[in-house]
Amino acid sequence: MTNRKNPSSIQDTLKAIMGAQRIILCAHLQPDGDTIGSLLAMKALLERLGKEVTAICHDPVPKNLHILNGWEAVQLASECTIDRFDLFCALDCSDSDRLGDALPLFNKAPLKMVIDHHASNTFYGDINYVDSKVAATGNLVFRLYEAAEMEIPIEVTPYLYAALSSDTGNFAFGQMDEEFFVQISNLLKAGLDITRYSRALHLMKEVDFVKLLSRALASLSFICDGKISYMCLTQQDFKESETAPESAEGLVNYALNLPGVQMCFLATETRENRVKFNLRAIQPHNVAEIATHFGGGGHVLAAGCTLEMPFEKAVSLMKERMSQSVC
Amino acid sequence: MTNRKNPSSIQDTLKAIMGAQRIILCAHLQPDGDTIGSLLAMKALLERLGKEVTAICHDPVPKNLHILNGWEAVQLASECTIDRFDLFCALDCSDSDRLGDALPLFNKAPLKMVIDHHASNTFYGDINYVDSKVAATGNLVFRLYEAAEMEIPIEVTPYLYAALSSDTGNFAFGQMDEEFFVQISNLLKAGLDITRYSRALHLMKEVDFVKLLSRALASLSFICDGKISYMCLTQQDFKESETAPESAEGLVNYALNLPGVQMCFLATETRENRVKFNLRAIQPHNVAEIATHFGGGGHVLAAGCTLEMPFEKAVSLMKERMSQSVC
Repeated sequence: MTNRKNPSSIQDTLKAIMGAQRIILCAHLQPDGDTIGSLLAMKALLERLGKEVTAICHDPVPKNLHILNGWEAVQLASECTIDRFDLFCALDCSDSDRLGDALPLFNKAPLKMVIDHHASNTFYGDINYVDSKVAATGNLVFRLYEAAEMEIPIEVTPYLYAALSSDTGNFAFGQMDEEFFVQISNLLKAGLDITRYSRALHLMKEVDFVKLLSRALASLSFICDGKISYMCLTQQDFKESETAPESAEGLVNYALNLPGVQMCFLATETRENRVKFNLRAIQPHNVAEIATHFGGGGHVLAAGCTLEMPFEKAVSLMKERMSQSVC
Repeated sequence: MTNRKNPSSIQDTLKAIMGAQRIILCAHLQPDGDTIGSLLAMKALLERLGKEVTAICHDPVPKNLHILNGWEAVQLASECTIDRFDLFCALDCSDSDRLGDALPLFNKAPLKMVIDHHASNTFYGDINYVDSKVAATGNLVFRLYEAAEMEIPIEVTPYLYAALSSDTGNFAFGQMDEEFFVQISNLLKAGLDITRYSRALHLMKEVDFVKLLSRALASLSFICDGKISYMCLTQQDFKESETAPESAEGLVNYALNLPGVQMCFLATETRENRVKFNLRAIQPHNVAEIATHFGGGGHVLAAGCTLEMPFEKAVSLMKERMSQSVC
């Protein structure tokens, strides 16, 4: 980690790309729409520039992103056998820990490039095209198309749409600005079928998710004059609905988006005497400090922790701690 | 209703506005974000042009749109006492039936103007600025700002955002094109606080809605190899959750946005022997013909009907009819 964070210019970034022939592109572990969308869009750009591209990731591409044609080209980093390459480019990875199994390849790269938008980026590359003012890494890949004077091909439009819309929760939060929507406009101009991909990426839910949503909402409770809400999922819920705790991903937001709620949690009994908490808040509150208090961590408005104790006791402790913070 | 649908040009529309001094603006009954957003944005434009504006609607402005500053200025049409005015302008109203209690005022207007984007518009005005290629009537109001060479004031940005984002389900469907997102970009440029209004208009849910969501999802069932899904809300559900059938608005979409589902319904027992059905489909299916079969109506992908019979019998009939259509 360098102390001085001087971002590389887009010209230097493009120059480094042009000077390389064999390039590894890497998404972050537990990949999302921004990192995979950016990777696939970048791969298409580089291939049009005549490069040999290998795309890798620590984890498999999640099922919801299989709507993106060509996702199968993303190899597991642990299975990547390439040993001679000119450039390693990490996309949407704030630090080298986010590379997972790709770290050894990164370490032996003759030239290391980082393209990212996280404010927490540690500038761990030789070239760091980092801009924390954009909403998504996909915005930076879009700019690279412009810098390379390359039209966005129609088949690339879903990649950049996935990147831009995922990191903004389908245009609901994040640092969207004038440029952001000019880029979306240009994707439409280039032929993006926005309704098809919006449905697939943002409207569709898995059946297991809605089963758990139903049970979690049935447990919805309020304390502190309605300023705090919480929901619970117990081992019994998972057993009766034949689902797994993993399917509850994202469910906590349903407790937050209710009138008057300022902070909320979802308590999930992942096994006996083990309770996972997802915490959410709206400004100016802070759930990161609550999570940290219980040995967890995260962001100011979205954090998490795990308590090793009986379910009722853990929920009671969290209610108490959250009330101190909000009431 | 005229047979020849020749839309008026934006220049003729603006000219008619410039020639009037006292103007009535009218939203459609059961108003939504597009009609109210367009009305408030239009009101601000006309006032900047020095006009005296009266804003009316058959129904009150719904609660979720109270986030839009100045909504209180919209009067109930039945209470509007104005008798001398130069121009009546209907916004987002496809035909004169959509004016409700404002129809008598429309009928006696010296000049009648219609600004709308519905393909079903009947061209019932003297000036019909109708363009069915845009996603929202708000897009046309935006164009009028441009034609009048008026900058979008920051306080108007939430109105146009409400219009554009409501009619597209927060950018999920509808006729969004290059111009649509250029307009959104310009709203950001003009200072739109998009995350604030996105949360208020698209993320927030009422507590009664999530109570019913929980119960409806608990009833979620599939037939026809999972191609048809359905959910039920009975009188008992409303009684136990202390909610009313009105709070179930929009809930049916949760049954549609599941993998493999091509058609779905929500059956709501509004009172004994009276069952309301909300029907949804994805292309190329047609629920309008199913609704019509049962004496209801609506659009190809979203329709409804009411059956006067015991709940179980009504659900059984609907399952049978839908299966014939899909399986």
